[in-house]
Amino acid sequence: MVFVCRKEHFNAAHRLFNPSWSKEKNEEVFGICANEHYHGHNFELIVIVKGTPDEDTGCVIDLKKLSKLIHSEVIEKLDHKNINLEVDFMQGKIPSCENLVVAIWEILAPKIADIAYDPHARLHCIRLFETQNNFVEYYGEW
Amino acid sequence: MVFVCRKEHFNAAHRLFNPSWSKEKNEEVFGICANEHYHGHNFELIVIVKGTPDEDTGCVIDLKKLSKLIHSEVIEKLDHKNINLEVDFMQGKIPSCENLVVAIWEILAPKIADIAYDPHARLHCIRLFETQNNFVEYYGEW
Amino acid sequence: MVFVCRKEHFNAAHRLFNPSWSKEKNEEVFGICANEHYHGHNFELIVIVKGTPDEDTGCVIDLKKLSKLIHSEVIEKLDHKNINLEVDFMQGKIPSCENLVVAIWEILAPKIADIAYDPHARLHCIRLFETQNNFVEYYGEW
Amino acid sequence: MVFVCRKEHFNAAHRLFNPSWSKEKNEEVFGICANEHYHGHNFELIVIVKGTPDEDTGCVIDLKKLSKLIHSEVIEKLDHKNINLEVDFMQGKIPSCENLVVAIWEILAPKIADIAYDPHARLHCIRLFETQNNFVEYYGEW
Amino acid sequence: MVFVCRKEHFNAAHRLFNPSWSKEKNEEVFGICANEHYHGHNFELIVIVKGTPDEDTGCVIDLKKLSKLIHSEVIEKLDHKNINLEVDFMQGKIPSCENLVVAIWEILAPKIADIAYDPHARLHCIRLFETQNNFVEYYGEW
Amino acid sequence: MVFVCRKEHFNAAHRLFNPSWSKEKNEEVFGICANEHYHGHNFELIVIVKGTPDEDTGCVIDLKKLSKLIHSEVIEKLDHKNINLEVDFMQGKIPSCENLVVAIWEILAPKIADIAYDPHARLHCIRLFETQNNFVEYYGEW
Repeated sequence: MVFVCRKEHFNAAHRLFNPSWSKEKNEEVFGICANEHYHGHNFELIVIVKGTPDEDTGCVIDLKKLSKLIHSEVIEKLDHKNINLEVDFMQGKIPSCENLVVAIWEILAPKIADIAYDPHARLHCIRLFETQNNFVEYYGEW
Repeated sequence: MVFVCRKEHFNAAHRLFNPSWSKEKNEEVFGICANEHYHGHNFELIVIVKGTPDEDTGCVIDLKKLSKLIHSEVIEKLDHKNINLEVDFMQGKIPSCENLVVAIWEILAPKIADIAYDPHARLHCIRLFETQNNFVEYYGEW
Repeated sequence: MVFVCRKEHFNAAHRLFNPSWSKEKNEEVFGICANEHYHGHNFELIVIVKGTPDEDTGCVIDLKKLSKLIHSEVIEKLDHKNINLEVDFMQGKIPSCENLVVAIWEILAPKIADIAYDPHARLHCIRLFETQNNFVEYYGEW
Repeated sequence: MVFVCRKEHFNAAHRLFNPSWSKEKNEEVFGICANEHYHGHNFELIVIVKGTPDEDTGCVIDLKKLSKLIHSEVIEKLDHKNINLEVDFMQGKIPSCENLVVAIWEILAPKIADIAYDPHARLHCIRLFETQNNFVEYYGEW
Repeated sequence: MVFVCRKEHFNAAHRLFNPSWSKEKNEEVFGICANEHYHGHNFELIVIVKGTPDEDTGCVIDLKKLSKLIHSEVIEKLDHKNINLEVDFMQGKIPSCENLVVAIWEILAPKIADIAYDPHARLHCIRLFETQNNFVEYYGEW
Repeated sequence: MVFVCRKEHFNAAHRLFNPSWSKEKNEEVFGICANEHYHGHNFELIVIVKGTPDEDTGCVIDLKKLSKLIHSEVIEKLDHKNINLEVDFMQGKIPSCENLVVAIWEILAPKIADIAYDPHARLHCIRLFETQNNFVEYYGEW
């Protein structure tokens, strides 16, 4: 079993905001992250796939195919967007990094085996850096 | 003459948008950077001061004082803000990195000598990273 | 279960030195790291908490609270200090990275659940970079 | 149990190429990575050892000894070399990152306990960055 | 005058080798960099343009156009190539970083004004990182 | 004229302290940087040489020779040392970054031409990072 990791980037606006709370409650809980006109980040997304290297290619998955999948399913929906207003898979959710990694996992997990050399390859981890100092990881349910 | 450099960070939303143009013209010129709901970045700001090291301290400027100045005059106005809507010194300007560095220069340049050990110290450069791949520098008028 | 990670920094002096050994033995074992007048590092400390995102906030823990806790319990005791001479929780221990991560774990582990949104959240990992090339990780006893 | 990590570097040329395939098939599968005159990378290799810190030294392993071992067994054979043509332990294998981490694991795993302070220390992970965006990890067979 | 900087990447193989010298002389002068089967690097290329920000866009140059120009004129010729054997603009030259930055300057300098908003914009610097520790800069003839 | 840059590292302890001042005055001016038991940093030193590339080698200077010179003249005196107590060329000076870059310039400047391919090559800049956020540059007297 080898773990293969691919890093991609997107730049997006968001705010932490619970619509069932008052403006004051949101500011009390989320501080400046609740700023009503949004703020933004250069997000770094790392997708980790685990599987057995294929004999013919020496690879678990073609990283160019993995990169294309991440772009078409995730990056194109997030890059240069407002996560609160424009990202279909985040509607009705607070756009925290925790909710983002779970949502990205659910999008990508069912699609990995189809594009891998190893038909048993599967998604292992979604890691998301919001800043150099803040990042989250999700390994699926367990 | 020694050059002393301090890096600070801010996270902000913006969009490239010329209000005298149509929506179509903005999209044609600025592409996804014109997205009407904004996007954002982790900006890195480097402020460079030049001067002669003081005999008593061995320093050109107290970097804690320089950091405080940058925070009170620049970072607090930009961090977790929408540059188009909320930053006083960018009103009426397109929030490009080029316009940001010139505006930040104009704010900081007159205030450097007052907080430096060297009374002749002055601002040398404002460098601003929008992403790891895009950055701009301004050295004042010449 | 989501893993939430926060990076902090401290600059400290230390030396690797076993007081029950002779000066020669210390130099033989630790080489230049035993230098009697100390040397130092820009340490990077990554604290990883695991838990379930809270429904109301979308977050496992408020990262500002986590950062404050790390500062008051760990960073303020280490930053700009001599680890051999001045850090209470390292007295009687060789200030290796291995001993540092275990000591920091013991300080932080009991305090995580109290400040998290998820009352079952707990410390998952202490990672400490001494240099870009040398780092250690501790995941508690197991 | 503490995990101790050491990063090393090597610069090498390689191409992804399966000698049992035609030139066209190689290009179809590997794209520009199959370029017949090779291309190259600044590889970053991270070796992670797990063990119990020794009472006398506070350390699991002497990182200078670990670095020397990695250099003599791995780096000297790869650095400034052509992996397809010149690296004995990669002959008959496609020089993918997946095959590299498994081969490096097999070289280093039997030699860790001998140089560690903890006689039960053992290799935990080989991580290899080919670029900033592509990296793989191997934790041995399981 | 504002300086606008764009970073791009390419991965290439090369060797330092003077064909008018013997194999022994090449090894004596260039050491392992002369390895006859090549080695390679992840090169980072920074292109810096200077000019006056345009009133309508707030920008000196459209960075997407600059990136496209760098790709079509430089990156596509170098990426996943052997610089000694396959790069037309380096034929007859030793593929040192010094020679690379001068050659890249000569390619890009005449093409900058045509794609910039400022018709007086011009190339200011070519910076090339061969590794994290070795890089060169060229500012044209003066 | 091409600028050739080499990065090296050293880890050292220091404190900012003016011996002609009282303990209180030192603490007032230098804050925690005056801590009497020292603190330390992972310093990064960048040495920039300017010159004309040699026809036979394509290089301004052999970077391995430049690295050796920096090590023998500078790094060996600073690495794993206490700058206040143990570094001959800093005695009688406050170990600020400003004073360090001027002192390192004075050591290296007279020795560059002797080891360069270009006999007219000369030192252009000493850049020293104390942390990721604080760094200084010196270009000699002018």
